[in-house]
Amino acid sequence: MSSAHEVEFDKDRHARIGLAEAVFCTGKSTAQIAHILDEAAANKRTLLLTRLDEAGFAVLPGHHADALDYHALSRTAVFGEQVPTKGASRVAVVMAGTSDAGPGYEAARTLAFSGESCELVFDVGVAGLWRLLDKVDRLREMSVLIAVAGMDAALVSVLGGLVPGVVVAVPTSTGYGVANEGETALRASLTSCSPGIVTVNIDNGYGAACAALRILRAIDAR
Amino acid sequence: MSSAHEVEFDKDRHARIGLAEAVFCTGKSTAQIAHILDEAAANKRTLLLTRLDEAGFAVLPGHHADALDYHALSRTAVFGEQVPTKGASRVAVVMAGTSDAGPGYEAARTLAFSGESCELVFDVGVAGLWRLLDKVDRLREMSVLIAVAGMDAALVSVLGGLVPGVVVAVPTSTGYGVANEGETALRASLTSCSPGIVTVNIDNGYGAACAALRILRAIDAR
Amino acid sequence: MSSAHEVEFDKDRHARIGLAEAVFCTGKSTAQIAHILDEAAANKRTLLLTRLDEAGFAVLPGHHADALDYHALSRTAVFGEQVPTKGASRVAVVMAGTSDAGPGYEAARTLAFSGESCELVFDVGVAGLWRLLDKVDRLREMSVLIAVAGMDAALVSVLGGLVPGVVVAVPTSTGYGVANEGETALRASLTSCSPGIVTVNIDNGYGAACAALRILRAIDAR
Amino acid sequence: MSSAHEVEFDKDRHARIGLAEAVFCTGKSTAQIAHILDEAAANKRTLLLTRLDEAGFAVLPGHHADALDYHALSRTAVFGEQVPTKGASRVAVVMAGTSDAGPGYEAARTLAFSGESCELVFDVGVAGLWRLLDKVDRLREMSVLIAVAGMDAALVSVLGGLVPGVVVAVPTSTGYGVANEGETALRASLTSCSPGIVTVNIDNGYGAACAALRILRAIDAR
Amino acid sequence: MSSAHEVEFDKDRHARIGLAEAVFCTGKSTAQIAHILDEAAANKRTLLLTRLDEAGFAVLPGHHADALDYHALSRTAVFGEQVPTKGASRVAVVMAGTSDAGPGYEAARTLAFSGESCELVFDVGVAGLWRLLDKVDRLREMSVLIAVAGMDAALVSVLGGLVPGVVVAVPTSTGYGVANEGETALRASLTSCSPGIVTVNIDNGYGAACAALRILRAIDAR
Amino acid sequence: MSSAHEVEFDKDRHARIGLAEAVFCTGKSTAQIAHILDEAAANKRTLLLTRLDEAGFAVLPGHHADALDYHALSRTAVFGEQVPTKGASRVAVVMAGTSDAGPGYEAARTLAFSGESCELVFDVGVAGLWRLLDKVDRLREMSVLIAVAGMDAALVSVLGGLVPGVVVAVPTSTGYGVANEGETALRASLTSCSPGIVTVNIDNGYGAACAALRILRAIDAR
Amino acid sequence: MSSAHEVEFDKDRHARIGLAEAVFCTGKSTAQIAHILDEAAANKRTLLLTRLDEAGFAVLPGHHADALDYHALSRTAVFGEQVPTKGASRVAVVMAGTSDAGPGYEAARTLAFSGESCELVFDVGVAGLWRLLDKVDRLREMSVLIAVAGMDAALVSVLGGLVPGVVVAVPTSTGYGVANEGETALRASLTSCSPGIVTVNIDNGYGAACAALRILRAIDAR
Amino acid sequence: MSSAHEVEFDKDRHARIGLAEAVFCTGKSTAQIAHILDEAAANKRTLLLTRLDEAGFAVLPGHHADALDYHALSRTAVFGEQVPTKGASRVAVVMAGTSDAGPGYEAARTLAFSGESCELVFDVGVAGLWRLLDKVDRLREMSVLIAVAGMDAALVSVLGGLVPGVVVAVPTSTGYGVANEGETALRASLTSCSPGIVTVNIDNGYGAACAALRILRAIDAR
Repeated sequence: MSSAHEVEFDKDRHARIGLAEAVFCTGKSTAQIAHILDEAAANKRTLLLTRLDEAGFAVLPGHHADALDYHALSRTAVFGEQVPTKGASRVAVVMAGTSDAGPGYEAARTLAFSGESCELVFDVGVAGLWRLLDKVDRLREMSVLIAVAGMDAALVSVLGGLVPGVVVAVPTSTGYGVANEGETALRASLTSCSPGIVTVNIDNGYGAACAALRILRAIDAR
Repeated sequence: MSSAHEVEFDKDRHARIGLAEAVFCTGKSTAQIAHILDEAAANKRTLLLTRLDEAGFAVLPGHHADALDYHALSRTAVFGEQVPTKGASRVAVVMAGTSDAGPGYEAARTLAFSGESCELVFDVGVAGLWRLLDKVDRLREMSVLIAVAGMDAALVSVLGGLVPGVVVAVPTSTGYGVANEGETALRASLTSCSPGIVTVNIDNGYGAACAALRILRAIDAR
Repeated sequence: MSSAHEVEFDKDRHARIGLAEAVFCTGKSTAQIAHILDEAAANKRTLLLTRLDEAGFAVLPGHHADALDYHALSRTAVFGEQVPTKGASRVAVVMAGTSDAGPGYEAARTLAFSGESCELVFDVGVAGLWRLLDKVDRLREMSVLIAVAGMDAALVSVLGGLVPGVVVAVPTSTGYGVANEGETALRASLTSCSPGIVTVNIDNGYGAACAALRILRAIDAR
Repeated sequence: MSSAHEVEFDKDRHARIGLAEAVFCTGKSTAQIAHILDEAAANKRTLLLTRLDEAGFAVLPGHHADALDYHALSRTAVFGEQVPTKGASRVAVVMAGTSDAGPGYEAARTLAFSGESCELVFDVGVAGLWRLLDKVDRLREMSVLIAVAGMDAALVSVLGGLVPGVVVAVPTSTGYGVANEGETALRASLTSCSPGIVTVNIDNGYGAACAALRILRAIDAR
Repeated sequence: MSSAHEVEFDKDRHARIGLAEAVFCTGKSTAQIAHILDEAAANKRTLLLTRLDEAGFAVLPGHHADALDYHALSRTAVFGEQVPTKGASRVAVVMAGTSDAGPGYEAARTLAFSGESCELVFDVGVAGLWRLLDKVDRLREMSVLIAVAGMDAALVSVLGGLVPGVVVAVPTSTGYGVANEGETALRASLTSCSPGIVTVNIDNGYGAACAALRILRAIDAR
Repeated sequence: MSSAHEVEFDKDRHARIGLAEAVFCTGKSTAQIAHILDEAAANKRTLLLTRLDEAGFAVLPGHHADALDYHALSRTAVFGEQVPTKGASRVAVVMAGTSDAGPGYEAARTLAFSGESCELVFDVGVAGLWRLLDKVDRLREMSVLIAVAGMDAALVSVLGGLVPGVVVAVPTSTGYGVANEGETALRASLTSCSPGIVTVNIDNGYGAACAALRILRAIDAR
Repeated sequence: MSSAHEVEFDKDRHARIGLAEAVFCTGKSTAQIAHILDEAAANKRTLLLTRLDEAGFAVLPGHHADALDYHALSRTAVFGEQVPTKGASRVAVVMAGTSDAGPGYEAARTLAFSGESCELVFDVGVAGLWRLLDKVDRLREMSVLIAVAGMDAALVSVLGGLVPGVVVAVPTSTGYGVANEGETALRASLTSCSPGIVTVNIDNGYGAACAALRILRAIDAR
Repeated sequence: MSSAHEVEFDKDRHARIGLAEAVFCTGKSTAQIAHILDEAAANKRTLLLTRLDEAGFAVLPGHHADALDYHALSRTAVFGEQVPTKGASRVAVVMAGTSDAGPGYEAARTLAFSGESCELVFDVGVAGLWRLLDKVDRLREMSVLIAVAGMDAALVSVLGGLVPGVVVAVPTSTGYGVANEGETALRASLTSCSPGIVTVNIDNGYGAACAALRILRAIDAR
């Protein structure tokens, strides 16, 4: 029962939908990840790895680990030479609290991997509303706002009522008790009283960045 | 199998905990409610009826209906002479949307029944943040703020970050889909990023008012 | 306890975020809706009403009903003269089954109310995959694809893997048993194996259209 | 991608709402906590740290650990000189079982940090009702009663029916099976048959204490 | 596709487990119920019908309705001559509130159908604890206590800590919001802090009575 | 906004997967159903309609209703001439209780529509185990057993341990309280202690029959 | 903040309800357990400890561990001299699978601690029905049957239909996926198609034994 | 309290239902597994062990481990000589992603243990639809298709619309957030828009293979 063909890349994905395939590392063995990196090296491909936690990174063979640009908090790694980001930021990643930084950086790193820069805005939870209001003028200039927030996710609604850009909510698993691993933040985002908010899976900074890229591509196509 | 004794009033409740017993009408038959009113009349007691919807009110015997001060939107009725409210309002009932008015009025009517006035603040959902910010100075003077909001209940957190008073959240069943009959608003209130928020059951304006009364009694006792 | 001020419009919403305020009719009384229409008439405003079901429409005073452009299946009504839609469609509303037409039309009517046309694509559920594949070339030209699907919502993922545009999933409450009033379609959309899909609340065609409008505004701003 | 600005304190919180900002340690790295303590030292600020478990405390740099007044069971630590508590206790922390002591102590330590003393009442679960009834006279004198209970949380309702003070329920994650990590205790508290009970998140002794502080401030303001 | 054999009685149930088969009427058509009654008449059997609501009773053919001893609140009907109850009551049906009377009467009627009397104790919810404490001495003499309570079901735990008899909890669907159609009362009963409490399905007075009958049969067998 | 093309039949479904497309009537308007029947008449197609309840059938235009072979309990209707069933039954539809007859008949009617007969076995719930054991020899001869059961669905496991045929569980929404509209029966079927049981959606007799047809086609193909 | 009084025994529990207080060890520190054992030794009390897992037992001080009769699979320990069991077994503990042995032994050890013997019946899941049917005659003689089963818990219903004794279901957390940590077994037990089944919390062998003891005491009292 | 008889094999299972009993290792101690292997050796039986993870395998006594054909990814082991597989594959195991390989191999190994070969098809998730469409012709020849997919499980519906064979869905616990440990994939499979799909428990490759074996036996019996 050989496993030689357990992986089949979706090779034309970029041509088809404008996004490169990323390697989701949860549930993949070290051998499988090493094999993927070998193949990428052989084909001179650049790769984004997501959900590669520190323990998983630590057990990679040394030459593989050395070849990666690894970022622990976001659990992302980039293999191969990255394209430089171009132009001014059109996306802001807006985070409610320090604990939301992981998914926020995951979004930022995904954007950078595709050549898009972004602005990172930390710790603007609505319990101290002035922190957000101070930055509204700048945020109103952005095409896309990735709003990263856990627990009650109130930041999402407040932000959505203040800016005209596309607000993509990333509910996070921050909190305890009825925060329920992000389920409450997710449901609060989906029932936001501000119109036109869209939402991705809990802690899915990667997905929010992909949505932002689809939007930027639509802008660039016009 | 006679039901003569299906009801036993908790007669010393007011002496014990400072709150009068109210009659929760859901699930009670017209005959049972009429019987309770007869007994109250015989004993010259004043009564607050909650969750008496328009259909239930319409089928009450005429002399009973006539004896009630009925308010449809809040589904409350008062039997007997009400005490006048005293002094300045120490409680504000702050509502996110028009659909939250039902539980908001239920709170206000419960307070009035116990001789406390309140201020009603309508339609200050955070999607249009300026509506709330315009009123913050007045709200900061209140001892208790009953925050009535459904869906994402973001109003609760924003308010809690702006005022020093006690914020009692009343999640409401407004909305559809993942608003989930108020469950999302409840969970968002319980995980509010603002500290010291307390919460009551969904649509429970009566309970929030009782909590406010306990607080006002504690204030008055000092 | 007068209710004269139960409604406060968010008057500068369009200037602030580019979207007009809509009137969500669920939970509003006939009198309240009539009052809102009177005020709109007095101020010569154009209004979109959502979630106005046939029973609610039928009991409106005749002159109010006559003044509305009502569409039963989408439960929407437009008051006042509508702007004509401009240019070619940049949005497609793609529906899995006939039962998904309600939220689909709600999205289409919201877009039209804001002057944007769209293409309606019916009954392309993946059980008969050829129906979707036949239309892929046209769909690949769209900036935004509103994917309306209930039950397993498999259409969302298949579509997301075929087109480069922004895919906004509208899970619907179609189905029975574990379809669970749309919850399964919602969760399937949020965990789509296609990257960059975004999601709105169950049956929320209005919200998906508002998101599309934010995207089109971002495109137009460049 | 520097993280120099991942933390922004809500510096005027105490002036605004009467409560100092606490540091929620779950999900923060050792480096981040150390950085916060350094900054507090530089600014001569006093700090309350919550949810700092023993493992997290053990890996703090020695001089930081030495500077903390750490309490393992409540997972709290105080940095800097604490204000002495003033006057007689106006708050009782009433716990159903020994396993509820953690959140109970968290409440007590939060109160002490703000200069308020409290009475701790242990192991008065209603399975042995006499234990609570023995203490009712004393409990009736309190302004606020923080009721800490897991599983069926029956203590909350019984207490609420016996005392006039404000009852703040802290459901706990004690128990197994359908206790469901505190969800059952939470729901039982929210549907208490005693009127005017308010509830905070599961195991949230800190939040209950903040609510008590808001109440005490309202009392002191009159 | 004839349905002549849609019903097959479990004829030897009484001999096998000591309980007669009852007819659960929810979901049965008028014709099916009429057919069952005809067959019972032909075979001179006595029958207990449960969950026969007033609407269902009203549409039964007149001679069938006349042959039934119908009790609306409990939704039960008895067909045929009932055995007289024997001896002193060994079971108490203890109800928290007036709204719990339906399932309480269902239990009482099921017991009576099998020849067992019981005592009905109404409105002893723990919010007014004195009502229950007044009756403890009598309740301590009972072999079985059927505790009928909704919402927080705190009565179940308090009772279980006061009496040595077998406590069978019947959670009820009384309440709203997080009472969640009886789910909270069920979970609170199952996690009661009093030892040896057993629980049946929500509103299942019939099942609690059957359990009591199994217990009484075990007593009688010794 | 014309709806002329709201329906697109999956015309080659039978050739592709061996099953005819059925018309799921829930959520379709009378006009839509009438339109579908007209089209079927024009094309001389035979149609199976599912989930057409009595109210929906009653409002169909007379000539359409007359053209249907309608069966109320199963909510199914057949349009056009049905093929005769062929050969001996290879499928048994085994029902736990009388209330499970609806989905059971739906399965039987779907099989008949495709030319397959089946045996109907009623009221063999395991509370009276002898009823099932009496029929085991016959059931062991069947290729497929559609097990229709609600509440605890214990019939599914017992049957699965007694027969070699393929057991397809149809959990039903029979019952109340924690039966939870069929969710408990579904989960019990999915965790059956008997190996090789497969499950379909709650009340989905149609789906179970389609699965049986796939199996019979696989048998016939060999 | 001393914790000298964190524990208060319910000293008269046995006199009040016929059951000794047990020590639930989950969430108690080694020091607390040691302290309790010291106190029991000083007062010559006998104690039952539950939920003391192997890790917790291993870290107890040696003289305390030596003084305990520890049983790993059931996680129970007895301190002090046990009473001998008396007479013939009136209780059977009937287990569906090997994995259900833990809660089964917990029930048996609790009964033995109170002087009652029981019969243990292993591995009689209904997938192999003959294993249970072989033992029915013996089981029909028992006053109480504690039915321990996970996943679909079909054993509970089958047993309940075969014996006249009191059936106390102990749902177990055996299984994976939708077995959902015992929740499915719990719900299946509560909706059993056999009448008069009662249920305790998931894995709660101790509670089932306490219920059995209440029943045996009721029998002995007659 | 001896545990000599904790295990009773269902010895005639194969004769009764055509499937051998497997040993489910979760929750069994090393000693119990060793005991079962000893007994199998003594009786010259062949055994399939499921859910034996690497940690559990590592602590088995050496001679037992050596006697097993162990496969880590599927967590299965075979004891004794395996029958050779016979003839051409009639089953395909179709997996959406690399992370679904575990349950896929479990199904394949179960089939092989019973003498049936299968084809393994990896990484054909619908985000890259061409991967599946390339293989449809071959898949249409199969009697049974075991579709293994997590998250949105869209593969199940697409496959079900393309092939006439019996589709058995194995939802997997792949993913995070609202993937909810496989619950979303399960619900999506159960509400598939393709007709005649059947489903087993989450990650239950063994169960799907048993269902396939029942189907193959039914085919072989004709």
